[in-house]
Amino acid sequence: MLGLMQDWPLTLDKVIDHAAAWHPRREVVTRSIEGPIVRTTYGQIQRRAKQVSNALLSGGIRPGDRVATMAFNTGRHLECWYGIMGVGAVCHTLNPRLHPEQICWIIRHAEDRIILVDPPFVPMLLAHLDKAPSVQKLVVLTDEAHRDPAWPAHVLTYEAWIGVESETCAWGGFDEQTAAGLCYTSGTTGDPKGVLYSHRSNFLHTFMSLQTDVMGLSATDAVLPVVPMFHANAWGVAFSAPGVGAKLVMPGARMDGASIHELLETEGVTFSAAVPTVWQMLLQHLDATGGQLTTLKKVMIGGAACPQSIIRAFDERYGVQVIHAWGMTETSPLDTLGSPSAEVAALSYEEQMAYRLKQGRPPLGVELELKDDAGEISPHDGEAYGHLMVKGAIVARGYFKGGGDVVDDDGFFDTGDIATIDAKGYMQITDRAKDVIKSGGEWISSIEIENLASGHPKAALAAVIGMPHPKWDERPLLIVQLKPGETAAGEEFLAHLEGKIAKWWTPDDVVFVESIPLGATGKIDKKLIRKQFVDYRFPAARAAQ
Amino acid sequence: MLGLMQDWPLTLDKVIDHAAAWHPRREVVTRSIEGPIVRTTYGQIQRRAKQVSNALLSGGIRPGDRVATMAFNTGRHLECWYGIMGVGAVCHTLNPRLHPEQICWIIRHAEDRIILVDPPFVPMLLAHLDKAPSVQKLVVLTDEAHRDPAWPAHVLTYEAWIGVESETCAWGGFDEQTAAGLCYTSGTTGDPKGVLYSHRSNFLHTFMSLQTDVMGLSATDAVLPVVPMFHANAWGVAFSAPGVGAKLVMPGARMDGASIHELLETEGVTFSAAVPTVWQMLLQHLDATGGQLTTLKKVMIGGAACPQSIIRAFDERYGVQVIHAWGMTETSPLDTLGSPSAEVAALSYEEQMAYRLKQGRPPLGVELELKDDAGEISPHDGEAYGHLMVKGAIVARGYFKGGGDVVDDDGFFDTGDIATIDAKGYMQITDRAKDVIKSGGEWISSIEIENLASGHPKAALAAVIGMPHPKWDERPLLIVQLKPGETAAGEEFLAHLEGKIAKWWTPDDVVFVESIPLGATGKIDKKLIRKQFVDYRFPAARAAQ
Repeated sequence: MLGLMQDWPLTLDKVIDHAAAWHPRREVVTRSIEGPIVRTTYGQIQRRAKQVSNALLSGGIRPGDRVATMAFNTGRHLECWYGIMGVGAVCHTLNPRLHPEQICWIIRHAEDRIILVDPPFVPMLLAHLDKAPSVQKLVVLTDEAHRDPAWPAHVLTYEAWIGVESETCAWGGFDEQTAAGLCYTSGTTGDPKGVLYSHRSNFLHTFMSLQTDVMGLSATDAVLPVVPMFHANAWGVAFSAPGVGAKLVMPGARMDGASIHELLETEGVTFSAAVPTVWQMLLQHLDATGGQLTTLKKVMIGGAACPQSIIRAFDERYGVQVIHAWGMTETSPLDTLGSPSAEVAALSYEEQMAYRLKQGRPPLGVELELKDDAGEISPHDGEAYGHLMVKGAIVARGYFKGGGDVVDDDGFFDTGDIATIDAKGYMQITDRAKDVIKSGGEWISSIEIENLASGHPKAALAAVIGMPHPKWDERPLLIVQLKPGETAAGEEFLAHLEGKIAKWWTPDDVVFVESIPLGATGKIDKKLIRKQFVDYRFPAARAAQ
Repeated sequence: MLGLMQDWPLTLDKVIDHAAAWHPRREVVTRSIEGPIVRTTYGQIQRRAKQVSNALLSGGIRPGDRVATMAFNTGRHLECWYGIMGVGAVCHTLNPRLHPEQICWIIRHAEDRIILVDPPFVPMLLAHLDKAPSVQKLVVLTDEAHRDPAWPAHVLTYEAWIGVESETCAWGGFDEQTAAGLCYTSGTTGDPKGVLYSHRSNFLHTFMSLQTDVMGLSATDAVLPVVPMFHANAWGVAFSAPGVGAKLVMPGARMDGASIHELLETEGVTFSAAVPTVWQMLLQHLDATGGQLTTLKKVMIGGAACPQSIIRAFDERYGVQVIHAWGMTETSPLDTLGSPSAEVAALSYEEQMAYRLKQGRPPLGVELELKDDAGEISPHDGEAYGHLMVKGAIVARGYFKGGGDVVDDDGFFDTGDIATIDAKGYMQITDRAKDVIKSGGEWISSIEIENLASGHPKAALAAVIGMPHPKWDERPLLIVQLKPGETAAGEEFLAHLEGKIAKWWTPDDVVFVESIPLGATGKIDKKLIRKQFVDYRFPAARAAQ
């Protein structure tokens, strides 16, 4: 027997409609790409998003068509999202930080028909778009006054493009499973893969993220999303802030410490979200200038493990609460949060730190499990490593044009991470599955050894990879890049690790290199390291040869 | 084109499963019907709910069957909810405060097969159940040690009934539109009507209520729902508290000021929800005893307009934030909340009070409109009255066995209330639609005149009804019950109203009565008053006869 409640599909047009109806004068403030601070409101954003919709419809865009954006966090970008999604087209967020060849591959794969682009990215697109024949139109997110004479005539400006359109447009009215957004993973292995979000998944993610123990935004908050809209939906802030009528403060192209600090203070920001490097830059700026944080209450940190020093600096020096978060493009993205449970809240500040350094616990709506190589559930004891598996309405079951499901028999998506979950339910990422070292049937965390080794005073960078071993299958190899001018012997590093890790975790060899290669996002490029060391053999194996 | 996200139906078994997985040791504390304080946990609640499911299945209960509860807020009642809903049966919450004849009518209409009942209600049920032949089994929510010798042998006790069952049971796996709960409106006009909630509507209500500006519960909260689980789902707390891992404190049968105060203090309660009369009793108890509220932070007040004196007492004397809420059985129930928007938060404490007295603004997920008699949208100016209409996934579209939709052409459900919405988006209920007085095409609020008239020092109670008028269609008649020993002339009351209401709102006559009839819920029974005054004519009309 079915219930007798209303059919009210969870489509995202309702989010901005809600903001426009109940918080019409609430501000969206942008540090514009052109330079000045630009102030608009949810009422205006909604009306202009309707103009975007009409411009798309006039241009022949139909439900299911992909419309790309390549843009910073701005009010105009927000209008584009709602304008595209409102008529059932798919908003494809392109990451401008990728290599042009990769961007063109993605555009071809997505078959984007229009690209809405911020001025700085126009030259790159113009130089390469011959390799992406699906693109019929380039619309630059600026006005005619800021048109660059170098742009050809067929390149439109956003204000001219939407200016002629009506502010009335029928939105929604389709199935909540309709595709709303498309975002490609950076693809450290193989080709990039497109995650195709639905209206339902983004709407449910909005509700989930609005819980007090997740983002907990209120109508009285002012929110600055530093995390880009092209990176896992800006962690959902483009939906959750209008969903509650919170003020939005958009940083545009400038993410340096001084620029972020200025916006935090002048706009009375209470909540912000970014990766650790952004916070590191902000803290350095505050250190250097003696600046204060007078309105900020809470920051969410994710994208990489957050160092204890950042958590302590925010908390102890500035009275700002840090919430550690973990998620990925395939999970919309938020999966776990470090907000204190009742048991953790009962601990002392110093005791709590161990939990705050972990990636946290899942909110209602996310199912989380650890599974061993055989697919059996691993215990939640904080010791057992397992493949981190997630399930939920906000989790991908496949990739765009990817053919078939990517979930296991129990419906879980494999995150590709190795993690522990402790008795209090706190998850900690210990390694990427492809980086974990399998020695004699047991797992060794490459990341844990790396973190310890890079703490050696002579180390600039350290990497650990598993190398083939005749007896143990794999054993850890420690690779070290010394600070300029330093010299060291391998034994110094092994002595540094002694007592800090299990004896059988000790690397079988230490190799010093001129430089450890880094990837586009600043992380150690283990794929490349493995290539460089493909012919390496451990000393014992060399002796046996 | 559809998105490629996981199919993860919003079924309520996932709520208690989440609590059991991530907050297994979090307490559910009950002032038991037998007397002592009983402590259990979400882990135990989930396992015992599975035993309930197995007992139901053993008894032949199948998906869609109605299983009734007639119980106070207790841990056992919570187990029953999840046990019933988990296997796709419908949990029908019976209101023990109704007249036995009405209860039997409802049981017959719902075709309940089993009733899970608290001990105090057993005699009433045994005396009347011959009128409800669908009921095959009575299970009393106690153990064998507390079996009343007066109960016949076929009456089971809960602990014996579930004790033999396994703690393993497959839950869920059905469509999220599946019926989960059934609750009848008290039915001030006509027969009671059953609202048939779905798993989806209750799950979405849970997400909506967990927003910071709604209930905003956290894992660190301890929640005491005074509002009964048989009254509009205890405002969703039986789902939202386990959904975040908040401690639940269940008051059982004792809702007096001293009992509630004791639980608030001994269990460290931070959040509570109840109707104004409960809070009035608590405040009187605190006044009388000098008691304090050392852990309570926030109370939600709904079910009737909250007097300013209660808001001020909590805020000014005890530092407790009062959130005014409005909703109804047909809307799951929460529709609007008085949490401050940014514009209201910017006002002074005294300026804010005008908004805190209103019923508030809708959260994301609720659409709210005012419509005039012709179905046209009324302006949001705080002046224009309109029929209050709601739309959303948590709103009913029909009644159980009711035949057909109860929504208008735009999909809105008519709440039966008359309200205003001001320019800041705050809604205020001004009258019930059937009580509003239509004079010369304009509307007069009966409630507003009543509130003013009952403030006259000589008045015990006051009621205002619309009476037929040859020229104006209807005109207000003021009916007053004086305090014992008082005498007054009608002119004294009209003079008291002068300047406080528009001149044309002035009642055409004042009538004094021995006693104004009250309904079961303590509200003025206008249906009965209208019957008593059916032959009444205004003086002018009498003169003309």
